[in-house]
Amino acid sequence: MANVYDYAHDLEKGLRESDEYQGLKQAYHAVMNDESARRMFDDFRETQLDLQQKQMQGQQITEEEVEKAQKMVELVQQHPAISKLMEQEQRVNTLINDISQIITKPLEELYRE
Amino acid sequence: MANVYDYAHDLEKGLRESDEYQGLKQAYHAVMNDESARRMFDDFRETQLDLQQKQMQGQQITEEEVEKAQKMVELVQQHPAISKLMEQEQRVNTLINDISQIITKPLEELYRE
Ligand SMILES: [Ca+2]
Ligand SMILES: [Ca+2]
Repeated sequence: MANVYDYAHDLEKGLRESDEYQGLKQAYHAVMNDESARRMFDDFRETQLDLQQKQMQGQQITEEEVEKAQKMVELVQQHPAISKLMEQEQRVNTLINDISQIITKPLEELYRE
Repeated sequence: MANVYDYAHDLEKGLRESDEYQGLKQAYHAVMNDESARRMFDDFRETQLDLQQKQMQGQQITEEEVEKAQKMVELVQQHPAISKLMEQEQRVNTLINDISQIITKPLEELYRE
């Protein structure tokens, strides 16, 4: 009988070969190989992380910061390579969330009893 | 070729059949079927969740609350069925964390590039 780790490694391989992951990989490389896209994407990520950290720490977010963040969202959405990357990230996130729900079902069932 | 969801379901079945999960299930039922153990365990969980929520919301935790929580930890650690349950929970948590690290490796690799 295969053990849990064997199944986990099979799943990891399956994920690696999936359309979702392959699509993300392509989209990620397309952005990373384009200097200006890469810089825009990095700026965007940094801005998002900064805002998230401030929110978690209960710090005030200024109107200026909100406006800056909104402008960056608009910019990246209009950038074909970056918006493609974000779309592919969303697909992989959905897949990972689905997987997570599937494999935690036994625990959920037990504690619901 | 199997798809990612097939692999995830195989893993879920493997987890369900694992010694770790079966041990947790037994330990959980042992506590749930013992009225006083169950009540002690529920109290313990509630106290822990309350404290966690207060911490997350940045609320002050009183010395009394800390002492109450510590006493409960001592109580449940001395209770054979409950301490067994907590030990089994720890084993399953370790397994789930290991699995999670295995299956998110492709993403980690990609973003590390
Ligand atoms: Ca470059
Ligand atoms: Ca009972």
